[in-house]
Formats: sequence, structure tokens, C-alpha cells
Amino acid sequence: MTKWVYNFGAGKAEGTAEMRNLLGGKGANLAEMSNLSLPVPPGFTLTTEVCSSYYDNNKQYPDGLDKQVEAALASISKAVTGKFGDSADPLLVSVRSGARASMPGMMDTVLNLGLNDQTVVGLAKLSGDERFAFDSYRRFIQMYSDVVLGVDHGFFEEILETFKETQDHTLDTDLSAEDWKEVVTQYKNCVRQELDQPFPQDVMDQLWGAVTAVFGSWGNARAETYRRLHNIPESWGTAVNVQAMVFGNMGETSATGVAFTRNPSTGENAFYGEYLLNAQGEDVVAGIRTPQQITISGKDEQGSVDPALEEVMPEAFAQLTEFYKRLEAHYRDMQDIEFTVQQGKLWMLQTRSGKRTTKAALKIAIDMANEGLITEQEAVQRIDPASLDQLLHPTLDPSVARDIIATGLPASPGAASGKVVFSADEAEALNAKGDKVVLVRTETSPEDIHGMHAAQGILTSRGGMTSHAAVVARGMGRPCVSGAGAIRIDYAKEQFSASGLIVKKGDLITIDGAKGQIIKGEVPTIQPELSGDFSTLMIWADKIRNMKVRTNAETPHDVQTARDFGAEGIGLCRTEHMFFDEDRLIAGREMILAKDEAGRRTALDKILPMQRQDFQEIFEIMAGLPVTIRLLDPPLHEFLPHTEKDIEEVAEASGLDVEGLKTRALALHETNPMLGHRGCRLGISYPEIYEMQARAIFEAALDASAKTKQPVTPEVMIPLVASKPELDFLCERIAGVAKKIEQERKVKLDYLIGTMIELPRAALRAGQIAETAEFFSFGTNDLTQTTYGISRDDSADFINDYLRNGIIEQDPFISLDVDGVGELVKIAAERGRATRPNMKLGICGEHGGDPSSIAFCQYTGLDYVSCSPYRVPIARLAAAQAALSNTVTSSQD
Amino acid sequence: MTKWVYNFGAGKAEGTAEMRNLLGGKGANLAEMSNLSLPVPPGFTLTTEVCSSYYDNNKQYPDGLDKQVEAALASISKAVTGKFGDSADPLLVSVRSGARASMPGMMDTVLNLGLNDQTVVGLAKLSGDERFAFDSYRRFIQMYSDVVLGVDHGFFEEILETFKETQDHTLDTDLSAEDWKEVVTQYKNCVRQELDQPFPQDVMDQLWGAVTAVFGSWGNARAETYRRLHNIPESWGTAVNVQAMVFGNMGETSATGVAFTRNPSTGENAFYGEYLLNAQGEDVVAGIRTPQQITISGKDEQGSVDPALEEVMPEAFAQLTEFYKRLEAHYRDMQDIEFTVQQGKLWMLQTRSGKRTTKAALKIAIDMANEGLITEQEAVQRIDPASLDQLLHPTLDPSVARDIIATGLPASPGAASGKVVFSADEAEALNAKGDKVVLVRTETSPEDIHGMHAAQGILTSRGGMTSHAAVVARGMGRPCVSGAGAIRIDYAKEQFSASGLIVKKGDLITIDGAKGQIIKGEVPTIQPELSGDFSTLMIWADKIRNMKVRTNAETPHDVQTARDFGAEGIGLCRTEHMFFDEDRLIAGREMILAKDEAGRRTALDKILPMQRQDFQEIFEIMAGLPVTIRLLDPPLHEFLPHTEKDIEEVAEASGLDVEGLKTRALALHETNPMLGHRGCRLGISYPEIYEMQARAIFEAALDASAKTKQPVTPEVMIPLVASKPELDFLCERIAGVAKKIEQERKVKLDYLIGTMIELPRAALRAGQIAETAEFFSFGTNDLTQTTYGISRDDSADFINDYLRNGIIEQDPFISLDVDGVGELVKIAAERGRATRPNMKLGICGEHGGDPSSIAFCQYTGLDYVSCSPYRVPIARLAAAQAALSNTVTSSQD
Repeated sequence: MTKWVYNFGAGKAEGTAEMRNLLGGKGANLAEMSNLSLPVPPGFTLTTEVCSSYYDNNKQYPDGLDKQVEAALASISKAVTGKFGDSADPLLVSVRSGARASMPGMMDTVLNLGLNDQTVVGLAKLSGDERFAFDSYRRFIQMYSDVVLGVDHGFFEEILETFKETQDHTLDTDLSAEDWKEVVTQYKNCVRQELDQPFPQDVMDQLWGAVTAVFGSWGNARAETYRRLHNIPESWGTAVNVQAMVFGNMGETSATGVAFTRNPSTGENAFYGEYLLNAQGEDVVAGIRTPQQITISGKDEQGSVDPALEEVMPEAFAQLTEFYKRLEAHYRDMQDIEFTVQQGKLWMLQTRSGKRTTKAALKIAIDMANEGLITEQEAVQRIDPASLDQLLHPTLDPSVARDIIATGLPASPGAASGKVVFSADEAEALNAKGDKVVLVRTETSPEDIHGMHAAQGILTSRGGMTSHAAVVARGMGRPCVSGAGAIRIDYAKEQFSASGLIVKKGDLITIDGAKGQIIKGEVPTIQPELSGDFSTLMIWADKIRNMKVRTNAETPHDVQTARDFGAEGIGLCRTEHMFFDEDRLIAGREMILAKDEAGRRTALDKILPMQRQDFQEIFEIMAGLPVTIRLLDPPLHEFLPHTEKDIEEVAEASGLDVEGLKTRALALHETNPMLGHRGCRLGISYPEIYEMQARAIFEAALDASAKTKQPVTPEVMIPLVASKPELDFLCERIAGVAKKIEQERKVKLDYLIGTMIELPRAALRAGQIAETAEFFSFGTNDLTQTTYGISRDDSADFINDYLRNGIIEQDPFISLDVDGVGELVKIAAERGRATRPNMKLGICGEHGGDPSSIAFCQYTGLDYVSCSPYRVPIARLAAAQAALSNTVTSSQD
Repeated sequence: MTKWVYNFGAGKAEGTAEMRNLLGGKGANLAEMSNLSLPVPPGFTLTTEVCSSYYDNNKQYPDGLDKQVEAALASISKAVTGKFGDSADPLLVSVRSGARASMPGMMDTVLNLGLNDQTVVGLAKLSGDERFAFDSYRRFIQMYSDVVLGVDHGFFEEILETFKETQDHTLDTDLSAEDWKEVVTQYKNCVRQELDQPFPQDVMDQLWGAVTAVFGSWGNARAETYRRLHNIPESWGTAVNVQAMVFGNMGETSATGVAFTRNPSTGENAFYGEYLLNAQGEDVVAGIRTPQQITISGKDEQGSVDPALEEVMPEAFAQLTEFYKRLEAHYRDMQDIEFTVQQGKLWMLQTRSGKRTTKAALKIAIDMANEGLITEQEAVQRIDPASLDQLLHPTLDPSVARDIIATGLPASPGAASGKVVFSADEAEALNAKGDKVVLVRTETSPEDIHGMHAAQGILTSRGGMTSHAAVVARGMGRPCVSGAGAIRIDYAKEQFSASGLIVKKGDLITIDGAKGQIIKGEVPTIQPELSGDFSTLMIWADKIRNMKVRTNAETPHDVQTARDFGAEGIGLCRTEHMFFDEDRLIAGREMILAKDEAGRRTALDKILPMQRQDFQEIFEIMAGLPVTIRLLDPPLHEFLPHTEKDIEEVAEASGLDVEGLKTRALALHETNPMLGHRGCRLGISYPEIYEMQARAIFEAALDASAKTKQPVTPEVMIPLVASKPELDFLCERIAGVAKKIEQERKVKLDYLIGTMIELPRAALRAGQIAETAEFFSFGTNDLTQTTYGISRDDSADFINDYLRNGIIEQDPFISLDVDGVGELVKIAAERGRATRPNMKLGICGEHGGDPSSIAFCQYTGLDYVSCSPYRVPIARLAAAQAALSNTVTSSQD
């Protein structure tokens, strides 16, 4: 008999933290805390296997589950007083989701379950607080009806508003126990009216309804969006946790809070958190009331006047301090803790590795390694390489005066400028059009995720550092200012006001998430200072990795940036702009439009000295490091003159006639330029182009070497090769140029000739191609396009349909498709090395900066990855992590 | 020491017919005839390995070659009287090319080599004919100077013309021995003047010059074109044959001729040939004089008044008759023979398998099998499948009156209509623009090959049935009328006249190559009657082959044609035209341009009954045979309205606004539509389209089955699949439609769902895809495009550069690329069958009708090939040949 249900609580549990895949993150950690003898309200977990089985079997639960749930309910009753459904001593439970990976707020939750017309009376008696009991009951009816029964929460809100009006109440706290009883009656009537059946009174019916709703919410749109953004496979499923309720809202001796064992924003090693007196846990996270600090030092730092938990409940605080230290030491990582104090007693509701900013993550990892809590290798593994992006990009220039409109909480660091928008949909729409936006909301909820992702930054007028907006923004790496109470948002007028100023939709603002500032207009940015922690981590990573990291760069500025970020050479120097940059566009166009070889040579003679200069600068910056130069690749018509005026300019410069130019331009048009006359096909049709480039490269190499006194060994790369004869044809010509220069200058040239592997045929014929090619560089952008038969330019339309329908789990242009494209890379690597055992292999597609693709490169035995300059540190870290794990994940589709 | 030189002649030879690859066709057959004790002028062959070695070693001959040549020259002198370079008893030789495959007239030849100022005197004495000797010398000087020394033959022609004018001579025959002596002097002066050195007098210098020129001619432009058209690899090289000269121009007891052992036009089992008295062999082939018939029956048939060889030289004829019978029996094939009678003695100069029309090839193969000379299997192997094309296409409607302008020789059967052009270049240019042309020339030469290929038919005013035009046209399968002496061509005015009528460039004419007729205007065509030989061959082929042959067809007319040609099902029924044919274009466009699913469904409802009707017709014609239907595949924007009027029509029909339609049309534009939103991607974005098609197919299957009383099992094919999840998504929907129809009609539906394999990723993931797909059909057009990264629409530009530079040997869109695309097909077949052992595998790309690709399909174990209707018989024959050989040729590039 499969074990579907795992108990926890009361100082022991059937599960452990290691059983995360089966019990979900929450369930595994509740079990672990129980085993650590922390005071966890008892409960049980329905495993993720129940979820899979449920979805695989047409939404039927597996046999035997019901018996296991009944037994588990019984064992809760052994651990605490109260019995599920007992009208005298009722046990209430919460029903919550818990996936393998944290998906905060994405799935449904039901609290206070087990209340009905009888048990609410029992609860009133037991707690001695009738008002609390009926308030809890009405909350339960609303939540359950909304989540499980599908009755919109708007109905209940309207009933309550109307009731308050008729009774002349303003606040919920004005309502008495009798009032709540009346509201409960009206709520139940509403359910009966909407559904034609009464609100369920049978507590077991309630339980199964809630469990089914939570499993069902795994498939809701919010959860799907979140999974897509965070690459969480649909097949994982969620677990469901059923746990005895504890109440932080049983009066002034009760409280509820969220805390981090270290500062999640800066990484500082100081306990940090927020709490609310007489409140339920959801109130803190939802950001409805702005909470108080847990520690006195936190309170001082924020300049808050509200008392800290440390002052209000010193005993509970002392216990909490002991527990958080134990938890951090046990998990060997910064923890995000939820707790409730019910009438003076502290209960631990959750622990998990806390989300943190990249800056904090770096500091925590380095500190913990220095503290001896983790090893250097573990520290390297702790940082998500992609998150480094946040540190590397420009920040606001401190020397520029800021026109500060208002200040809120520094909820997620970084700076962002953009047009103000007030809805998530609008943020997404404008972003799709290329506009940068800042999303401004009173507070955010899981429904806003897509807009937060689309925005450069997020600003809220309510909610603390642990509010939804703050947590999600930090996870996404988006700058966020939260709880900026000084701004007043008017959704109807699409504007907000602060300090007497009106900011309308579309106005530019800047937010500084590290300082909590909201600034008028766009503030210029500067290169960030990288912290010592960053350097330390990079040094540790470099010790571990065995793949080199090069860069894709061609302008002196980018080449220098990449070098500063630690690039160990250039893996892809594109040469397109060397033909078609503004100062040489006319000569470039003259070359394209020439009627014959003689005309092309005339134009090429003009371009040669410019390209030689380009290459020389690059060689000098990269002094001594390898530089791979790709000869002209793109379809020529991309650079055609489009307007009459352009054509006339070219005609004048080249002495050709306008009509002839137009005819030639028309002849160059292609139906599918991606698969057209480009790459080495240009070199074969017009060898003089590649000959000119070869000359520019070789002469520049000699000149740069003379100047820097460092040897320069250029790597000449032929694009879009499909067969060995293509390469042979071009190699012969390039070698001819080299020989000529050797004779002219009486020197010996050192160079390599290699090829991009970016066509399926090239991968298959790599064994033959390697007879001529001295290196391979995998151009995985084009290889993905041809292997999948998908044009990246045209894929936006249907890739979204694919993601939405779960047909692909990741955009293959972002993360390398290991199963398809990856197999071709593997085949090419094997066949190439079979012919030429010491062949240098690298990747220069954009996947070269994607951590999971880098893991694949390590696994496949490539020598280096090459990526854009800002991705170099990411790649260095990812390569180190890849060297440590050396595994690769297949999607098996 | 490598043997570079092989002797032949005098009743024995060092080589045999089997050594064709080493000795070339001509050399091998000269050796074989020698071994058969036929009277072959003695000589020797420099092997094709000499050619390869020459080209591989920077045009240097291998060591030891010179010694072997000298020894071989000496052994000629042993076999005949005369000695090379001996002034008293000179030996003259011919130097000719001889490749593995016949390349008639493509390479250079030098005759009468060995003549100089001394030996010409000796030749005069020996022959007793001073005029003959000096005529031969001037011919030699002209030919040698042109071919070897690069002095244009125009110089010599001008000298001769001027000389004749000053001497008041009209014809060459008017010139005396003294005249020729004077011409020789002038010729030599001309050479000295052009080259600054005298005409070579050293006969060994002459010999090496000629040999080098012949090897060099392997690389000339004519030869390259011919190789490209006939898929002859450049690496084969040519041999060179040096052979003692015999003279058919030594007076009236001498003659030269060309004969076929059976009629090369009809296949009739009758000796057939032409000769010229007192002439050299080149005169017959060049078509300068119209030759006489060899046999009396041939003379009677042609209604000629010139005497036959049978009458003029009965002894030589009798000997020739004996020899040809021996040769045909020995080679077990129809032979093409060249001979010379020198002063009454018959010499055999060449034998080879004769080129023939397809009709003749069929008759000869069937006859020979019936005669017991070859087996049925050999008969099947004797016919080039591609040549069947000639028989299958429509011929002139005999019921239509023909306006006959003139009549010539029926040189190559078939009918052709087109615009008159007078140059090969113009033929090629007009053909490239899509015009059909008939090339009209006085005579053709190897320089005209490209124009003959581009023309629908060829008409010459001079030359016989064995003239260049006739031989090449038969080889190409082009209709040809030759020697139409009644037409007079005026190249300058670009017109010809006949029967008082002027036909200008661009006028339409028709030629009937089977009857020799030239007809004014375009004559309508009818379906050809296929001969009994054709049916017999097909029956024999069908007994042998084990792959099925299906067709790619979707209109009732094409489906019926294919069935008549023996198609065993439909391998690819495209459905594009079922959306966008004239009568449904508006509904189709309405579907594309709909803003949402509801709009699409409205349009689809209009299309459903039409498609159901289409499918029903197809199922009825193919009653009981399998029909594979591909769901909508192409990018939608192909069918967009382009003009304002089109857009307005769609707006009116659909009730949508014009501006909205324009916006949507713009949104559908794609950069690379081949790699865009098409194939199953449409089905995933708009499942309602495929659901409608599935309904049309299933309902039509039930209706057709009810009508024909035959079971119909439609095969639903999903295009452009890259992964299993795509297929799963669509399968589920199609199965849903099937289930609905089963409920509606209370029946059980039989159907298969399969997929195209046309993307590299699909081939690699075939193992997973086969878990869902019930069949695979290889779409090798698109698979070639993606594997090579070449858009077929855009490849014309550079594919020619590739062919010209020898980078590819064949256009991969015509013949399947075995090494690249083929490996993916093989991988997919293996992985697919590993998952689903009985998986049906077929090919539906255009390669399915290409014989060498069919051989690959056999080798790879496919179940069927599918091709266009007219290719079905070709595929049946090619499949039989593939079953017999079961090998495949790799290009190894």
C-alpha cells in the first residue's frame, strides 16, 4: 500500500527535510522542525504523488487515501486537544499547498476549516471570545466559498459593506459578536442562493473540498505563469498540508510574524522581521496593515515609533531567538520563518531558505563560508548566477541631484526608470511595445505577477518589507519601493499625488530600491562598484571551474568591459558593423550593389584600412588572449539602401546608375533570409570579401603584436558551413592571403581557421569538417533555429501558445534544448574530436551566458563558453557550479 | 612502378572492357575489341589515374610515364608499318579523350598527329596522294594550333577563305596539292606570328602537347556543364587514347561511318547507320555533310537516292555485319559503332553501348529479354527510370489539323511547342523566365549544350540522325528534328524561312520529333498511349520491388492520373487549396483574418462542407487504398488579400472592418515564413482549424465507405512536428473529434494519426514521437532546407556558384543528400522503429520521385515512396532497381 499521508508535529514527524520532492517544501520543513522538537502545530501532508495520481487518473484520488487521512486526523487529536468536527471541543485546521519549489501566494489556502453552526459555538466557549469565534466563522465561509465553491468574494464584501452601512459601522472592529452572527447568516444565505445548496456543515466534506481545491489550484493561470517564469515543470505537482490552526488574533497576547535570520536585503548577520499584534498570518504578508519591527535595533533603524516584539513579548522573543539560531545552524542557510503567538505561546508555522537580494546572497554566502558554516564550494553553489545581473548593471549616478517626490521602504534594491502605469496588464502591453515602465499599485497580489515581470520596477503605497510586492520583487531582481504611504493613488484618474505633485500615467519616474526613494524624471546611471564579496566569489569560482569564459564583443568599449569582467578572450567578434557602421555604410553598400567582382574590389579597398584598424584595437585590448573573428555572415540585403536618397548617395559614391542599383537591390531580396545567401555562401560567391577580411585580420595581428609585444594568434571563423568542401574552398583562399602577407612582410603568421557549427548538417558532418577546421564554435542561436525549424524573429506569436499549453517548458532560444539541439552539439563534439583529438570547442550562441546551458557545455566537454560582456561574471560562476555538479537536465519532450 | 599506359590492337590488349574506370569507356572498349580479334588500329591508353595524378600534383605528370609512352609507341610500330616521326615511313596518331562515362564532343581531340615538314613528304609518297598528304597536314596544323596552342581557328579559316578568293576557288575540293602546300606555309607563318615561335616540328613535343591539352580539357567549361547535367563527378578524370591513324578520306575506296546494332530511335532490331565516302570520321558526327545510309532497307525507308554502303562496298559491309553481331552478342546490349574503310580495308574504331530514345530502350530491353540475351531483371535494370518521363507526358493530338511548315529527320521523338530562339544563351535566358522555347540552329555543337537543356525541343537545318544535335537530344530526352534542309536560317535577322513563310524569333512553333515535322503555332496535346513494352516492363518491375509507390495528389484529376499510372495510395494529400481555391478563398481569408476563435469558427463552418466533399471524392477514387492527408501547413500570410479590393471583399463577407483587417494582415507578416507560424504550430494556436479538418476527413471517410462499400482508413498527418508534446496536444483534439462523430453517427471510426518528419529535431526525437505517432512520412524538402539551412526559394543564386566550384556535386533538393539529410532519415527510422516496430515509414518530399533518392529509401528500409502522379511509373521502376542493387552512394562531402 502506497503511503500517501505523512504526519508531523508534537516533537516528531514521519518525514524529513530531505523528502522535499515528496512532501513539498513546506511539508518537508514542517516535518524537519518537528524532528528538531520545535513547537509546530500538528498536522499531516498529502504527498505530491497524490497530486500526480489525481491528475493522471482523471481527477480521481488513489484508493486508500481516505483511510490514511482519517487516521492522520485522529493523530492530530492525540497531539492537541480538540477533535475535528466535535461541537464541544472542535479542532480547526488550515489547508495549504506546498510545492517542491516555493511559489508564494500562487495557490489556494483555506483557514479555520472545521467550523460549522455547531463547532462555532464550541469555539466561542473554549476561547471565551464569542466575537472571535463568529468573526473566524465568517472569514471561513467567505474564504471557503471563494476558493472551493467558486462564489466570488465580491458577494461577501458587498453584504458586509451593506450591513455596516445599515448599522452605521465604519470599521470591522466596530462589529460585535451579534453583528458577526447576523453577517454569518447572510453569508450562508448568499451561498444557498448562488449554489442552490447550503454551505457545507459536514467537516469531512469541507476538508475534501479544500484539499481538492488546493490540488486544483496547481493548474490555475497564476500558478502556470509563475511556473513558466521560474522554470518549474508542471509534472512536479504540489503537496497539501493540513495542520491544526493556531490563532494570532486571540487578543493582545497573540501575534503573528515573519522573520529572516539575516537581513534579506543587505545580507547583514542580524535577525530581522516584522509582526502584527492580534492578527492572522495572512495579514502580514498581504500588506494590509503596515507591521512593526521584531527587534529593537530594527525599530531604531527604521525610525519607527511602534514597539518591537522584543519589547512587547520578551519571553516569546527570547524563545524565537533560540529557535532561529537553531534553524539557521541546522539548515546552514538563512531562513525565512513564520510564527504565531497564541495567547502567549509561540508556535512555529514555517521555515524555509529565505529569498534575498543578490547582494545579500553574496554577503551571506561569503560570511557563512568565513564563519565555517559552509565550504567555499558551497558558497559558490549558493548564488544563482543569473541573479548577478542585478549587480553588474548601471546604478543611479550619485552626483546627479534627485528630485525626490516621496520615500517608502527599500524593499528590493536597484534603480529603475520608466513610465508610470497603474495596472499589470498595461505594464505588460507597454513592455511588449518596448517601453520601460514602473508599475505603481496600492499593493500587489499574485494576479499582478505578469505585470511585475514586465516592469522595470515596482512601487506600492502600502505593505512592508515582507509584503507580496517586496518578496516577489526581490525574487525577480526587480527594484521595489513598498509602503510609500505619502503617495496617494487614484486608479480612476490614472494618477498619483505626493508632496502636492500630480504624476500621471505615462510620466517618467525613477525609483531607488536601495534607498526607498521615488524620484521625478529619469536619473542617469553609472557603472556599479562591485563589492569585495563579489570579487571573493569570483576568485573562488575561478578556482573551481575548468571551462574558459570568453566574450562576444566587437566594439572597443564592449571588449574592454568584458575584459574588466574577466573575459579570457573573444569567442565571437562579429564583423557586420565593420562594413555597415555609419562611417562606412556607403562603401559597404557599394560593395553589395556592385555588378561584378571589379566593382566589389573597388569598394573593398575602401573598407580594408578601416577594418584593419578595428581589429588592431581589439587585439591590443585583448593582448595575448585568443580572439575569434567571424567573417561576414548576414544576408547582404539587410544593409541595402531603402530610400531614394540612400540609393542616390550610393550611386554618387560608386559611379553606378540609380536604376541599376535598384534592380540589384531587388535581386537581393530573399523570401527566407535566415536560410538564404549568407555566411560562407557569401564567401564562396564573392571570395574577394573574405580575402579582404583575412588581410585586415592578419595585418592587424602583426601590427598589434609589434605594438603590445605579445603574440597574437587570430582565430578566423567561417560561418554557416554545411560541408567540408565549402571550408576547403575558403581555407585555400585565406591561406593564400596569409602566404602573400608573409612574403610582403617577410614574417611568419600564426593563425587558426575554424568554423561555426550552426547547421544540423555541419554537426552531422563534423568528422569530415574537422579534417580542415582547427576549431569549432557552436552557434546555438542558428542551430536552434534550424534544428527546430523556428525563426526567432517570428516565434513570439506561437512560443507563448506553446508555453501556455505546456508544450514546451522553456523557450529554446533562452535555455539550450538539451534533447534536440544538444544531441547535435554532442554528436559534433564527438565526431570532431574523433578526427582531431585536441580540437578546441566552444559555444558562442546566446546560450553561452545561460547557466543551465553552461551546465550542458561542461557536461559535453567544451573548452569554453562565450557570452555578452555583462554575462561574463555569470558565466564564470555558472561554469564553476557546472564543474561541481556536472549533470544536465533533459526535458524528455 | 605504377602501370600508367595500356596497349591495345593487333588482336590483343593489356586491358579489358571491365577496366572502364581505369581506361575510360573508349579505351576499355578498344581493348575489348582487340581481344575479340577485331581489326582495331593499334594504340595505347594513358589511364584516368594519370589524369588524377596530374591534377593532384599541380599539373605534373608522374615519374616514369614518359618511358612507358615511348615503349607503347614502339609497340604500335611493331603492329603496323610506319614509325612515329620517321620521314620515310611515318606513323600518324590520333589523340582522344575517353572518360568513364561518355561525354560526346565535350573534350578535345587531335588527329593526324606526327605530321611535320618532313613526314608530310613521306606520307605523300606512301599514299601516292600528295594532295591528301598536304590536306591532312593543314588540317593537323589548324586543329593542333586551336586545341593545343590556343590560336583561334578563325585565323586559319580566314587564311583559307582569302586564299580561295585570290585563286578563284569556291570549294575546298577545288584546291590542288600545290594550293594546300601554299596554305600550309601561310598557316605556319600565322602560328609563328601569333606565338612568336614556329609550329612544333618535333613529333614527341606534338604528342605531349596534345596529351596535355586533352587532360586539360577535362576542366573546360563545356565539360563542366556536361558533368553537372549528367551528375558525373569531377574526381573521375579522363583517360587519353593514342592510336594509329587510319584514313577514310584516301579516295573513293575509303569511307567512314557510324552505326547502331539496332534502331536507336524505335528500338527495332535492324542494323542502322550512316556513312560518308572519302571522309574523316569527324565529318559524320559534325553534321557538315548529310550522310548516306549503310543498309539498303535504311535507304529505302528514308526515301534516299544516294547508294547504301551495302551496295558500294559489299565486302566491307559483310564484314561489318559479322562484327556488329559479334559485338552485340558479346556486350549483350545495343552497340554504337564507329568504323573506317581505308582503301578497302575495314577498321573498327569504337564500340560502346548506344544512346537511344526511351521508347527504343524499352523495346530493346524487352526484345533482348525475350530473345534470351538478357534476363527480365537485367531488362528492368537497363532502363533509366528518369527517362520514362518522355513516354508519360502528353503528345500531339492526332485529331487536330497540323499546319506543317517543313519536314526534317525524326532525330529524337516527342513533341515540343515553344517560342523560336536562335541562340543557346537566349534559350537559357527565356527558359529562366518561365518561357518555353524551341532552339533553332543550322547545326549544334558542344557549346550549345546549356541551351539545348533549357529548350523544349531542338530543330536543325543540317546533320543526320547521328549528328551532334540528334545524339545529345536523344540523351536528354528532348524532341529533335534534324537536317530540315527546307528551312533557311538567317541569324542576323533572327528568323527562318520555309515554304515561303517567315518565322521570326518569338513566334510559336511545334516540332514532332517522332515524325520529323515542323508545325506552325502550338498544337494541343493528349495523353500518350503507353506501349505494350511499357506495361511489360512495369509488370516485371512490380514483381521485383518491395517498396510501395504512392502519390502526392489532391485534385480528383491528379488522383485519377496517379491511380492510372499505378499509384498504390496517396502519400501526401495537401489541404491548402481546400482553404484557398477560388471558390473558398474569401472564407479562407475570413478564417485567417478573424480576430478571435469565434470569428474563425464562423469561417470554418463555411469551409467544412467543401472540404468534406473534397475528401470524399479522393477516398472514392482511391477506394480501399491508403490516403495520407496532411492538415493545413503553410504560413497563413501566403493567402492574405493583397489589394484594397481583396481586403474590401473579405471585409464585406465577414462583416469585419477594413482597418482591422489591414492591421491583422500586417501582424501576420513574417521575416522567415519557412520557419514561422505554420504546420502544427497553426494547429496549436488555432485548434479549431485542425478540428474542422479532422471532422471533414472522418465524415468523408464514412460517406465514401458507405458509397464504395470499401473500408476507408484515413491517415491524418500532422506537419512540422518538433516534439512529442506537440503531437500529443493535437492528437487529443483529433481523437476528440473522432469520438464525437462516433457518438453522432453511432459507428466505429478507423484511422491513424502520424507525423511528417521534416525537422532535424523531429528526426532526433523520433523515438519519443513514435510513442504517439502511428506512422512517419519524411518530408525531405523541408528536412533538406533545415538540415542545410538553405531556403529553396533563395538558393538559385548560390547553388550555381557551388556547382560551378565543385563544392556540391548535386543540388540537394533534387537528389537526397545521403550524408547529411540521409543520416537524419536513418536515425529517425531506427529510433521510430525501436519504439514502434511495425511503424509505417514513407517519404513524401519531391525526392520520392528521384531514382537515386529512391535507392536510398530502399536501403534505409522505408515502406513506400510517394511522388507526383507522372513520376509514379518512374518510382515503380526505380524501386525495382533499388531492390536489385540495394546500395547507396555517398558523396562524402
